[in-house]
Amino acid sequence: MSDNMIKITLPDGSVKELEKGSSGLDVALSISEGLARNVLAAEVNGQVWDATRPITTDATIKLLTWQQDEGKATFWHSSAHLMAEALEALYPGIKLGIGPAIEGGFYYDIDFGDQDFDSENLKVLEDKMLELAREKNEYVRKEVSKSDAIAYFEEKGDEYKLELIDGLEDGEITFYTQGGFTDLCRGPHIPNTGFIKAVKILNVAGAYWRGDEKNKQLTRLYAVTFPKQKELKEHLELLEEAKKRDHRKLGKELELFTFSQKVGQGLPLWLPKGAMLRERLENFLKKAQVKAGYDPVVTPHIGNKELYVTSGHYEKYGEDSFQPIHTPNEGEEFFLKPMNCPHHCEIYKAKPRSYKDLPVRLAEFGTVYRYEQSGELHGLTRVRGFTQDDAHIFCTPDQVKEEFLKVIDLVLYVFKALGFDDYTAQISLRDPENREKYIGSDENWEKAEKAIQEAAAEKGLNTVTEYGEAAFYGPKLDFMVKDALKRSWQLGTIQVDYNLPERFELEYTGSDNQKYRPVMLHRAPFGSLERFVAVLTEHCTGKYPLWLTPDQIAVLPISEKYAAYAEEVYAQMEENDIRGFIDHRDEKIGRKIRDAETKKIPYMLIVGEKERDESKVSARRHGEGDLGSFSHQEFIDLFKEAAKI
Amino acid sequence: MSDNMIKITLPDGSVKELEKGSSGLDVALSISEGLARNVLAAEVNGQVWDATRPITTDATIKLLTWQQDEGKATFWHSSAHLMAEALEALYPGIKLGIGPAIEGGFYYDIDFGDQDFDSENLKVLEDKMLELAREKNEYVRKEVSKSDAIAYFEEKGDEYKLELIDGLEDGEITFYTQGGFTDLCRGPHIPNTGFIKAVKILNVAGAYWRGDEKNKQLTRLYAVTFPKQKELKEHLELLEEAKKRDHRKLGKELELFTFSQKVGQGLPLWLPKGAMLRERLENFLKKAQVKAGYDPVVTPHIGNKELYVTSGHYEKYGEDSFQPIHTPNEGEEFFLKPMNCPHHCEIYKAKPRSYKDLPVRLAEFGTVYRYEQSGELHGLTRVRGFTQDDAHIFCTPDQVKEEFLKVIDLVLYVFKALGFDDYTAQISLRDPENREKYIGSDENWEKAEKAIQEAAAEKGLNTVTEYGEAAFYGPKLDFMVKDALKRSWQLGTIQVDYNLPERFELEYTGSDNQKYRPVMLHRAPFGSLERFVAVLTEHCTGKYPLWLTPDQIAVLPISEKYAAYAEEVYAQMEENDIRGFIDHRDEKIGRKIRDAETKKIPYMLIVGEKERDESKVSARRHGEGDLGSFSHQEFIDLFKEAAKI
Repeated sequence: MSDNMIKITLPDGSVKELEKGSSGLDVALSISEGLARNVLAAEVNGQVWDATRPITTDATIKLLTWQQDEGKATFWHSSAHLMAEALEALYPGIKLGIGPAIEGGFYYDIDFGDQDFDSENLKVLEDKMLELAREKNEYVRKEVSKSDAIAYFEEKGDEYKLELIDGLEDGEITFYTQGGFTDLCRGPHIPNTGFIKAVKILNVAGAYWRGDEKNKQLTRLYAVTFPKQKELKEHLELLEEAKKRDHRKLGKELELFTFSQKVGQGLPLWLPKGAMLRERLENFLKKAQVKAGYDPVVTPHIGNKELYVTSGHYEKYGEDSFQPIHTPNEGEEFFLKPMNCPHHCEIYKAKPRSYKDLPVRLAEFGTVYRYEQSGELHGLTRVRGFTQDDAHIFCTPDQVKEEFLKVIDLVLYVFKALGFDDYTAQISLRDPENREKYIGSDENWEKAEKAIQEAAAEKGLNTVTEYGEAAFYGPKLDFMVKDALKRSWQLGTIQVDYNLPERFELEYTGSDNQKYRPVMLHRAPFGSLERFVAVLTEHCTGKYPLWLTPDQIAVLPISEKYAAYAEEVYAQMEENDIRGFIDHRDEKIGRKIRDAETKKIPYMLIVGEKERDESKVSARRHGEGDLGSFSHQEFIDLFKEAAKI
Repeated sequence: MSDNMIKITLPDGSVKELEKGSSGLDVALSISEGLARNVLAAEVNGQVWDATRPITTDATIKLLTWQQDEGKATFWHSSAHLMAEALEALYPGIKLGIGPAIEGGFYYDIDFGDQDFDSENLKVLEDKMLELAREKNEYVRKEVSKSDAIAYFEEKGDEYKLELIDGLEDGEITFYTQGGFTDLCRGPHIPNTGFIKAVKILNVAGAYWRGDEKNKQLTRLYAVTFPKQKELKEHLELLEEAKKRDHRKLGKELELFTFSQKVGQGLPLWLPKGAMLRERLENFLKKAQVKAGYDPVVTPHIGNKELYVTSGHYEKYGEDSFQPIHTPNEGEEFFLKPMNCPHHCEIYKAKPRSYKDLPVRLAEFGTVYRYEQSGELHGLTRVRGFTQDDAHIFCTPDQVKEEFLKVIDLVLYVFKALGFDDYTAQISLRDPENREKYIGSDENWEKAEKAIQEAAAEKGLNTVTEYGEAAFYGPKLDFMVKDALKRSWQLGTIQVDYNLPERFELEYTGSDNQKYRPVMLHRAPFGSLERFVAVLTEHCTGKYPLWLTPDQIAVLPISEKYAAYAEEVYAQMEENDIRGFIDHRDEKIGRKIRDAETKKIPYMLIVGEKERDESKVSARRHGEGDLGSFSHQEFIDLFKEAAKI
């Protein structure tokens, strides 16, 4: 092979020979022009590069388009540069902080100095960005020396960039220029601004330089951009819909939960309706778990340092965690438990186990605590304390497949009962090139990986297999669930673990009377009750499945004259485990119906003279209207049928 | 009145005039000779004194006999001196540490020097003590100067006493002498050694001087004494019975719970059978609470410092508590929650409340953490983390009585369901002499005290009223429950609280549109699940009520041939919520029955050829024997009747 050529290995394993100095874009061109038009960046030997950056050695590359998260991030980061360029054009002399891509777009922090940013007319900025985008200016990368970099920003008078440069090593500094704008930037970027076809400034906020409130407050402009106008439109519609479904808003309206600064941020207080909803979810899963052979256990919310030294978590407790709890004397040190597995390992160890006892399946709705920075907290999806529907299965290597089959059944039962019907399973296996970084015997890994794949296949799951995505301690299967807004949530992980049984020296006696290490499986169909309730609430806009919803019926007496009969009806419903309330207010029946509809009460039972005299109820279904007249038992039968899981 | 006379006020308010210098014993003699024979000490103006110590001023006195805890303590402390005297006689030259009364007896720490204590033949010591007791030596109190005290023990060569004297102020040092033995001692003591009629050395252990492991290890002799031989016999029988019923022993046998040093001492791990038992208790109470109008809530196990500053608990967090949990940054400080009330106050505050919403009853099975020294820990009765069946009722002052009535109903329902039928109610009211030390208006206190007394009377409770025993923040009612060993347990406190509503500034809007403070009631029928399970287990020797017991039935196939029929029987039982197991072992039926009896399984269902052919079961009741032959439905009906709460 000529010295002038390099070998490019593509994700499918195919190899292309190209001239040395070819770029990701050249690779794309060698495949198809259509692909080349869509390439935003290229992952070269695991690092994301500009699509146009020359490659000078043999490399493994993956082309990144709008379909990949890294492609989107590159697109949005480049859009931040475009926004900065537009802002400089509109507000000469401004100083720039940082402008990263984030989930759902990007921002740039700006010091407008004496100028006022016109936050009333954001269209001016959007239009300017689109105008500059149409110039199709290339993003040009340039390596600069530290002294040159300093000289450039000293001349420009931008102390923020100077401060950033101060923290960088000479020799690793790069500038990117598009059109008339140059920024200190590590890259990568999209080929040119022409890719950006749609712009929306989403929000204007204040942000301290470097997040430190002792520093100056800059103006943070949040925005999002798209390669197509149509995509922006869809995105904004979804944002609008997401706002309506926001579990924080619905949680308040439905009185599910609240937060208190005094109790502490990120620590939800479950209000009665939320606590009951949560309890119904727990009981639903508990019942299924008892049937599936799980044993409940209860463990404390703290653990001695010893426990975490053994589990290996102690090494990871650092400045990012809740700090240890010291005892007054005796020199003990405890930690809020960040997971339940070490406690369950100690329960497994509490008595000798034989192969005849396996699998041992220990289940606990265990509340764990993990520190999150306050800025990261978000409703119930990102909290500092949450309850996992946790269980640990201790089994022989030969039982792994059977256990996977059972857990998959349980997870699918949960999904079905709660209306999630769009999901795929992601199977994470070892990196076949790099087997030494995994703990556990080769034989057991092969057995487990095969078991997971076979179990998924037997259950007819739609799977994606990711090599190299397994944890160092075992392969796993994750369910990726799409909600009603097409957002993807990871729910129901099943994780094999060879590490904790080793660290805790767990054993069972085999039929040959020898000692063996069990395999441990972690699994949680809901994941956490907090996050699950948030996802579920947004998925169904607070209209929960009938079996789960807080108020299943409202009994609506037409007037006070029928209050006693309403009580009689409600008492009978209650006896049949149908819950709800009687609307005794002195209001017209039309108003009572409208209010019950607004509250999304599934069934309304209207009772007046005719109903009372005939010992019947007139039933209405939320969103459907009149169902007709029913005897009490007829309605109970209809209801039970509808409430079946 | 003559200068030579003093006024003695007795507990019933009556006043006696006696000569100055009269003692408690003289007071007793002035009442009856029988009483005088039983007086062990006297409480003079709130301090316990020797019964023989002269009283020189007017005083309020209470005579202490074996019936009072302080009387027993004086008796046992005097017995410690007697034991020391006997030991000195048997082992001349020994040195003495301390010898206090404790619950259920007393101990003395002894440095035997080069001598070996004969722990094989404890009777020698017991006999020596009884011999000295028969001498009826008086306990003689003498005030000594510090220098005289030092001189005495320097001559005796007892460095332990010298160390103790070192910590005392001159002028407050007293010696007590009986027979040939003198001890440094604050007293008080019984009149003479003749009161001690029965002695038992219970245990010999090691103990570091002053509890510090850097010091020398002394020999600790535990013993108990009684005024009558018969009482000792009964006591030893109860100790024996208590040993059999010890919940730590039964908890292990029944696999209810375990402890792990790695998880941490005093932090129970509930094993499957225990977790299920606990869950049944929870569900039982939850169901009763829903009926009684309680709303469940769920709150985190930590709270911000702010919360405890508001509640007033922060001031009390000190060297005796679990230390605070710091966050990595943001300077936050959290505490493990030691109680649930502050969290519930925040939930009350989460929305505006009207008088129409009251009472609000927030219930939570809330796990709390309180530091206890490792030496204080004991099974499930003294732990560092426990779950309270907590609820807080927020009501108007006028609703207090009605709420007390309802809580009493609930507590009695719990007692009945769990077989506690020997209880009294202790009502703790204000000290009428000292009203300024209580928070809350006089009017509200009067209303609440009257409400509690009326409620207790209406429910026909056997009550004891204690003046001055109320907390500063409100009066309360405690249930004192006697278990099968006649031990008294405080279960089911109902506590009025005017303090937290004030500190949290809780409000409701009255019918006049004005703002008012609600009254708060704390209540917990079980107290804590841990302690309750311990008490219940010892009360019923692990033979729980049928509705609660882990395994209600055992299906016993006569041989393998009837295994399939056994499965069929068991499946039908399970369908009817009757739980247990099938004994599939290859054992004779006699053995299976014996084993089921040992395990205290309430019902055994024996199935063989006859039963299978007739579709029946032969039922046996634990401890009763054969019940005869039943169709499945007949047995289910019989069982359901027996399992009724």
